[in-house]
Amino acid sequence: MEKFFELLKEEKNSGARLGIIRTPRGAIETPAFMPVGTQGTVKALTPEEVAQTGAQIILCNTYHLYLRPGADLIKRAGGLHKFMNWPYPILTDSGGFQVNSLAHLSKLSEEGVLFRSHIDGSLHLLTPEKSIEVQEKLGSEIMMPLDICLPNPSPYKKYEEALKRTTRWAARSKQYHEGKPGVLFGIIQGGIYLDLRIKSLSEIEELEFPGLAIGGLSVGEEKEIMYELLEGILPQVPKDKPRYLMGVGAPSSIVKCVSLGIDLFDCVLPTRLGRNGTAYCASGKVNIDNARFREDFSPLDPSCDCYVCQNYTRAYLRHLFVSREILAARLLSYHNLYFMGKLMSNIRQAIKEDRFLEFQKEFEDTYRERSISL
Amino acid sequence: MEKFFELLKEEKNSGARLGIIRTPRGAIETPAFMPVGTQGTVKALTPEEVAQTGAQIILCNTYHLYLRPGADLIKRAGGLHKFMNWPYPILTDSGGFQVNSLAHLSKLSEEGVLFRSHIDGSLHLLTPEKSIEVQEKLGSEIMMPLDICLPNPSPYKKYEEALKRTTRWAARSKQYHEGKPGVLFGIIQGGIYLDLRIKSLSEIEELEFPGLAIGGLSVGEEKEIMYELLEGILPQVPKDKPRYLMGVGAPSSIVKCVSLGIDLFDCVLPTRLGRNGTAYCASGKVNIDNARFREDFSPLDPSCDCYVCQNYTRAYLRHLFVSREILAARLLSYHNLYFMGKLMSNIRQAIKEDRFLEFQKEFEDTYRERSISL
Repeated sequence: MEKFFELLKEEKNSGARLGIIRTPRGAIETPAFMPVGTQGTVKALTPEEVAQTGAQIILCNTYHLYLRPGADLIKRAGGLHKFMNWPYPILTDSGGFQVNSLAHLSKLSEEGVLFRSHIDGSLHLLTPEKSIEVQEKLGSEIMMPLDICLPNPSPYKKYEEALKRTTRWAARSKQYHEGKPGVLFGIIQGGIYLDLRIKSLSEIEELEFPGLAIGGLSVGEEKEIMYELLEGILPQVPKDKPRYLMGVGAPSSIVKCVSLGIDLFDCVLPTRLGRNGTAYCASGKVNIDNARFREDFSPLDPSCDCYVCQNYTRAYLRHLFVSREILAARLLSYHNLYFMGKLMSNIRQAIKEDRFLEFQKEFEDTYRERSISL
Repeated sequence: MEKFFELLKEEKNSGARLGIIRTPRGAIETPAFMPVGTQGTVKALTPEEVAQTGAQIILCNTYHLYLRPGADLIKRAGGLHKFMNWPYPILTDSGGFQVNSLAHLSKLSEEGVLFRSHIDGSLHLLTPEKSIEVQEKLGSEIMMPLDICLPNPSPYKKYEEALKRTTRWAARSKQYHEGKPGVLFGIIQGGIYLDLRIKSLSEIEELEFPGLAIGGLSVGEEKEIMYELLEGILPQVPKDKPRYLMGVGAPSSIVKCVSLGIDLFDCVLPTRLGRNGTAYCASGKVNIDNARFREDFSPLDPSCDCYVCQNYTRAYLRHLFVSREILAARLLSYHNLYFMGKLMSNIRQAIKEDRFLEFQKEFEDTYRERSISL
């Protein structure tokens, strides 16, 4: 049987890694970016379009799909892949993050999280077992155990308790999932304290998950703090497992975190920014409603070969956006995901050719994370 | 030089006609339905998708494009086709209808219509000449002269005045457009009175337009009144010109009006209904948010071979719609336009085979215009 994850190469001059994740629904070349299909659709796009942008896996949100349309319905539909017409791998999260950020009146206990739906106020108990049960009904290839993710910064004591409970829940999740299809990752927590992170890593490692996720980052702390923590954590992480940095996916963060040894990313930004009129371009983020684009008949990003940049002008995209046309959301979301697909493919190529540091330098010299005009 | 319109066939047992309109940007087989791309986009769809549904021509609204992004901008972009990436024929209306229905404070005089933009309140004078000037800048293949369209019913006297002014404006439009690219249609008015319609027809006919539009119908009157009027008017209309029934396009109206001799239709319904969760199906209109579709894993319309019906279930479409996902608007709009494309293609085939009456009867027996559940 083929290995779930194969580390193909470690780049010579950085911590960057090239790998491949194999699943029954296809392989994922890493480093990889996962577009987010929260409610069983990557917003504004068809599955075919998402695949065209280079995505080999998407992330769907257990919390949303559990509440609507419901995991049993999706199971009866033949699973999430069939329901949403996406034949490639899917990673599902545990629902824990959304329970904290979206649900009403969530109440934490050792058993799980009691919460009220943000849709209809109905009461639900999300336990580690329940989360896995739901993910199994969805039928995802990669699953996440319920964990405790605190906002940064929080008190040391709280992180400590949270990471311990995260370990106990990880063990319960693993036990529940034992022998069933789909690969369950472990998640390490510990907030912004390296010693807690290392403690979490060692506890989670004992449970022998085939993949490791790093949670609780990009939730309030400065980016430099996140990078420092990753620099401290990653050298301790076994090399033979994929490393997934949850919820991180701004282009500049990806390039930096790849250099530190991260393999998997997800983020709603490409589609959310797209719907709000912001495009990723070679020079950085561009707000298409800027008045200077009113009569700009050049492509959105002249260096991009995507469908949008081949067929439409900035002036037209601006017109669509200021006229609140759905096509604006579609075209900008598509372009942004294509940008991510290309970025990841360029990253992998640079790793292959042992020139990741040059790639990183060139990227950092040209790409500006803050929104600018061209 | 090829004729602009060629009448290929008159169906044996009805008034239905088969024809072809030839333009520099391609031919249009008639009877034809024109999707509406109000602001330079058929809402929620790409031009490629619109073409896939079988549309050979679309309608764009002069009023909207004149106000935003502006006709001069579109001209500098290389014309509307290039601006919006639609390489096939475009018909533009005069803007008069929208000035009456959307603009603020519109004031009518012999010169034209003074109005305030619904977008920014700015003051504009739309004259027959201005309307043609704008349409020429857009670069459409088929243009409409500014006319006076009254709501039905209105007083006889008012219709009479309106049709006379419509004739005078038609003459001014024709004079202004003389010798320039694009084909200008005449529009007949006269409200719900057959004698006024015949009078309008004879006045407009004197101006020798290459195509005839019938305006001022489907604006308040019962459908039976519209059909009766068309039965009275159409036998008087020269056979060698295409006949365009403006703003009419519900499937049942199309089938009926084709039987009376109409060649061209346009309507916002397929896309507007789609965005609002209603689908055209073989059995009639279906509201996808109906609870009975919650676990219905069959295609939207089992008899349809479009992308949506081949790849998604009613349950999924309902989920997208109740979750307010953009993809719902996309998929239902696409399906509805595909339904229209197929309807028109079936109509043309039935005319070719001299079995239009059978087609009409079968359609009327199975298709219900009112929204129903399957």
